[in-house]
Amino acid sequence: MAAARYKMISIPEAQATVLQHTPVLESETVPLSAALGRVLAETVTARDNLPPFPASIMDGYAVVSSDGPGEYPVVGDAHAGCSTENLSLSPGHVAYITTGAPVPPGADAVVKVEDTQPAAAAAAGGDAGSQQRRVVICKAVPAGKDIRQVGSDIEAGAVVLQAGERVGVAEVGILATVGAASLPVHRRPRLAVLSTGDEVVAPETENLGPGQIRDCNRAMLLAAAAGAGADAIDLGIARDVEGHLEGCLDKAIAAGVDVLVTSGAVSMGDRDLLKPLLERKGSVHFGRVLMKPGKPLTFATLSLPGSSRQLLVFGLPGNPVSSFVCFNLVVVPALRKMSGWAQPQLRRMQVVLTSPLKLDPERPEYHRVVLGYGRLPPACGAAAGQLGWFATSTGNQISSRLLSARSANALLELPRAEGVLEAGSTVSALLIDDLGFMPQAETDVPATEGFFA
Amino acid sequence: MAAARYKMISIPEAQATVLQHTPVLESETVPLSAALGRVLAETVTARDNLPPFPASIMDGYAVVSSDGPGEYPVVGDAHAGCSTENLSLSPGHVAYITTGAPVPPGADAVVKVEDTQPAAAAAAGGDAGSQQRRVVICKAVPAGKDIRQVGSDIEAGAVVLQAGERVGVAEVGILATVGAASLPVHRRPRLAVLSTGDEVVAPETENLGPGQIRDCNRAMLLAAAAGAGADAIDLGIARDVEGHLEGCLDKAIAAGVDVLVTSGAVSMGDRDLLKPLLERKGSVHFGRVLMKPGKPLTFATLSLPGSSRQLLVFGLPGNPVSSFVCFNLVVVPALRKMSGWAQPQLRRMQVVLTSPLKLDPERPEYHRVVLGYGRLPPACGAAAGQLGWFATSTGNQISSRLLSARSANALLELPRAEGVLEAGSTVSALLIDDLGFMPQAETDVPATEGFFA
Ligand SMILES: [Mg+2]
Ligand SMILES: [Mg+2]
Repeated sequence: MAAARYKMISIPEAQATVLQHTPVLESETVPLSAALGRVLAETVTARDNLPPFPASIMDGYAVVSSDGPGEYPVVGDAHAGCSTENLSLSPGHVAYITTGAPVPPGADAVVKVEDTQPAAAAAAGGDAGSQQRRVVICKAVPAGKDIRQVGSDIEAGAVVLQAGERVGVAEVGILATVGAASLPVHRRPRLAVLSTGDEVVAPETENLGPGQIRDCNRAMLLAAAAGAGADAIDLGIARDVEGHLEGCLDKAIAAGVDVLVTSGAVSMGDRDLLKPLLERKGSVHFGRVLMKPGKPLTFATLSLPGSSRQLLVFGLPGNPVSSFVCFNLVVVPALRKMSGWAQPQLRRMQVVLTSPLKLDPERPEYHRVVLGYGRLPPACGAAAGQLGWFATSTGNQISSRLLSARSANALLELPRAEGVLEAGSTVSALLIDDLGFMPQAETDVPATEGFFA
Repeated sequence: MAAARYKMISIPEAQATVLQHTPVLESETVPLSAALGRVLAETVTARDNLPPFPASIMDGYAVVSSDGPGEYPVVGDAHAGCSTENLSLSPGHVAYITTGAPVPPGADAVVKVEDTQPAAAAAAGGDAGSQQRRVVICKAVPAGKDIRQVGSDIEAGAVVLQAGERVGVAEVGILATVGAASLPVHRRPRLAVLSTGDEVVAPETENLGPGQIRDCNRAMLLAAAAGAGADAIDLGIARDVEGHLEGCLDKAIAAGVDVLVTSGAVSMGDRDLLKPLLERKGSVHFGRVLMKPGKPLTFATLSLPGSSRQLLVFGLPGNPVSSFVCFNLVVVPALRKMSGWAQPQLRRMQVVLTSPLKLDPERPEYHRVVLGYGRLPPACGAAAGQLGWFATSTGNQISSRLLSARSANALLELPRAEGVLEAGSTVSALLIDDLGFMPQAETDVPATEGFFA
């Protein structure tokens, strides 16, 4: 009955408490090839201009724009990657040029190849290497036409990425462009996962013994940690014996992890040993949260011997759905803050219900749903047929039924209240998976009018 | 001028052509620890019931419900993980029970510990091990109360995940629950990335020579491939010499990859050698697409010696933004199809413009934007202040300016037309990054009314 000693706190209080005790991790230098998904620890500036030289935007001919249309001798070739120091253009002359090549000194515009014609002599079999190379420029172009000026894409010294920015695919390209072959990013959190309970056995177990179930939390939380950008280690299953649980906790400490995530051993039973153990070894900041599922959620910090760091311990409830929901609500934001995210909280949006949902009169509830975007289905009532975001329940929400998290990409925030929220109601949802994976047929959403015309 | 020989096709035609030539890859068996993000190649069923025994939902006492409130002797303990074969309950008796423990034979309900009191004798110092253990049951409960019936979460033989489902975090847990310690998933695509061009040099290059720029496409496309779930290898930079380019193509073939992604060498210059080479070695399915950026986008298939497989070759344009956009539009869907996705296309939604955007009269355009969700800013006109999705342009969209892809999580689909789309207009957008990373302050979007009350 130890759990009852803990004050029941609200979800925002729990989240704030966790983030308060969560440090932003120090930086480390990684090669560009390992930077995807990391957060920059320092602002990145460009060391040189891009382009570093006036560069052609087209394949065609570099010209002196005041010359205008006419037939001109081709005095040379400016290929991408070449030096044009020895290829100076005077009025009345042109140079062949390719996309990305430096514009020769003297030239001030490029005429694209589609606006030129082979000169009569050339067409009749002129030799590209001979003095006779000539071309007809068919079009007048203004000075500067189809030339990227020095530094027009990136100016030397300019900030290209700020400290705190996440390195996505495009950012990898930007870093390569400015020569950031290695870069300072926040260290990835190190996390250990521990299951507890005499009833749980390895997933490999083919034939379950009396009273046994397979351990789903450990594999799931290891995957969740990886998905959240942490380096995770597996501490196995702690038996419901104080000494064994303590030994596992010591292993986490010895492994030097930043975070320990346990599941189970936090409710009201006589073998729920985690809270008393954490009390003894560190500080328990909360042990009960007013939420469904996840009420016994526990958070503690432990001093680490010989270190100024603290080990964060998340005691997630043992029911798999509770542990899934709590990981998303409190562990994910903590891992994001550690990794350097300025806005570590889950993203929130409003969505329309496609079915009535019964509310819980005692606790605010996180209802697992699949969000989709498209024409709202008929069940949405007045809004049906409009384009919008709608939430489809994953069914029976009992916290032991992990199938209620199957395909779920969001958690609805349902208020504590009597009664039912009708289909068609608008509620808030927290994103817990990439909406790029949501169900959507190619015909569900029209493109901008005229786009494919 | 070889490129002009290619018919200009539409984007949907290009995408359909690519998917037509894209196979769904065969399956392989992976351990559960490697399954995150993969797509199931076979339907998974449960081999046993969950729970496999009637299980207590609470910590408390197993009772015979018809007994009702009163003081009862406690005949034993049903702990999670124990066998209750020898703990049979007859009317007038109760057993201590913990969450997840098997309900002893004879008991038909559980009274949670909060609804019980220590009996007088016990409170006065009764020994838990003695015959005197008694407890006061304070509340009547109906039969079945706080018991999960056998198979109520998962029935033996039931389908828990379908072939074609993506394995997310929750699915890993579901697989562990049913004992799927290893499972058949579609193989990951193998992809090689090759840059081309005499002007591009390694990102490590500190001092650029005349006419040189750093190669940003290769690092970016390798990151994009990894992000799309492919195993990618780096083939370096092909010089603008036919023999070297062909040698690199041969390396891709020898490496046994499924996909080769090149950048550059596809426009109208005399050193744009890729299309003629691909013509010679395989079939070029298209070489020009009516889109901005990305017009010279090229797609070919090559027969592989001694194999029925074809190598897919995507010749992306050399400008980094073109290569970024084209990778998302045609390579990502191909990789998804290979990986087993039933709906490989990018997800589409409608969003509101926060600034006027000039249209291109010649080509439909993919404008890079940062999508956000919250109160529409004042620039959105009539809709300002409403909650919704809005698109912020990344600025100058010239295809050499990779900063226009910085932080971009979507591509707007802007129709080919004269004039301007006003701020406040609604247009379609394709998702190219996880919206869980979008900018959003904690106060931007309210939770459901009453949720935090
Ligand atoms: Mg337990
Ligand atoms: Mg080139």
